[in-house]
Amino acid sequence: MSSRTAVCLLSGGLDSSTCLALARREGYECYALSFDYGQRHRVELEAAARVAAFIGVREHRTALIDLRAFGGSALTADIEVPKHRSPSEMAQGIPVTYVPARNTIFLSYALAWAEVLEASDIFIGVNALDYSGYPDCRPEFIHAFENMANLATKTGIEGRTAIHIHTPLIALGKAEIVRLAAQLGLDFNLTHSCYDPDREGRPCGQCDSCLLREKGFAEAGIRDPVVR
Amino acid sequence: MSSRTAVCLLSGGLDSSTCLALARREGYECYALSFDYGQRHRVELEAAARVAAFIGVREHRTALIDLRAFGGSALTADIEVPKHRSPSEMAQGIPVTYVPARNTIFLSYALAWAEVLEASDIFIGVNALDYSGYPDCRPEFIHAFENMANLATKTGIEGRTAIHIHTPLIALGKAEIVRLAAQLGLDFNLTHSCYDPDREGRPCGQCDSCLLREKGFAEAGIRDPVVR
Repeated sequence: MSSRTAVCLLSGGLDSSTCLALARREGYECYALSFDYGQRHRVELEAAARVAAFIGVREHRTALIDLRAFGGSALTADIEVPKHRSPSEMAQGIPVTYVPARNTIFLSYALAWAEVLEASDIFIGVNALDYSGYPDCRPEFIHAFENMANLATKTGIEGRTAIHIHTPLIALGKAEIVRLAAQLGLDFNLTHSCYDPDREGRPCGQCDSCLLREKGFAEAGIRDPVVR
Repeated sequence: MSSRTAVCLLSGGLDSSTCLALARREGYECYALSFDYGQRHRVELEAAARVAAFIGVREHRTALIDLRAFGGSALTADIEVPKHRSPSEMAQGIPVTYVPARNTIFLSYALAWAEVLEASDIFIGVNALDYSGYPDCRPEFIHAFENMANLATKTGIEGRTAIHIHTPLIALGKAEIVRLAAQLGLDFNLTHSCYDPDREGRPCGQCDSCLLREKGFAEAGIRDPVVR
């Protein structure tokens, strides 16, 4: 398989969708990977499928994983999703929506698939700026994962192309991501960001993820078609 | 929770069982973690449950994971398990029984559970000497994972006890592991090592795992009660 093959993590949110669109524009054949991890906001899995089809991926898989078994997060356990937090509140400490070791697990699966595909590129839409306080969105984490990945796999022993973890959004603000997505022609209607949607899948407009999204669109001067 | 809490990866094989017994002897409250990853040798999950009960763990969980979706290994896909390989053949390259990124995924789940339990210790029975050619059994991989883990989690931000990955068997030969297990009082009858057991769960005696086990018992001068 060509070295232009990439595994792209795709939640169906704004960031991962923009990241996938960027990988496509850079010419990668994309294999999109989503996770069913017992999240409250399962409507995001439908968003991921819509986005993958819209952008045009070679294949889209959803891996079933068992994070619920460990609990410990408002996104998977019976803990209330916090609402109406200000940017300064979000910046303080780690929120209850943090899912333990989530990006580590997601990237590990991406690594497994990349190894089977003989792909050397993995894209993840993490963002360290408006990152809502998650430790596994920081550049130092990504570098450490990449280093580990190159020792974990056949690559590390057989001297083949090294694994590269791409994080094109890591230093962007939410408004810059919105502008980039618009420029890439992403259909915002297909994406889903809310942690706590209603039964019809409409965003709550009050959780950290909704508030960050709203702020991003406002600052970018673009209207979000998804708001209720 | 006390700092003497550990998450112990347990396949039900000789190495992971010995590793768990060692963690118990060192006084850790052990949370044993096994994986149902669509392996051919599913009888090992029953072995894991027997060993966990015998050694005495606080809790034993089996996480269902989706490695089969990616294929690429004789342990999960429809590829024949190689038989009758000599030690020098085993030492050459990476065998088809290698499961892509397996230990990375296993350790990532252990990390998630450790974070929820507020445990700082993870035990894994990897072995770099008689390691059958797997890249993710090497000390440099473990060190890189540990480094990544401390950046991936709340620990890394909140300055709590750092995550420590224990690999007490990493430098031991198979004979030394057999002697250590005997000394720890492990009931060998409960363990299962074979990659390709028959319908009754009896070992084939011919795969790499069986051959390494046989050699270890022979060199240790101890009789293996499991051989058919």
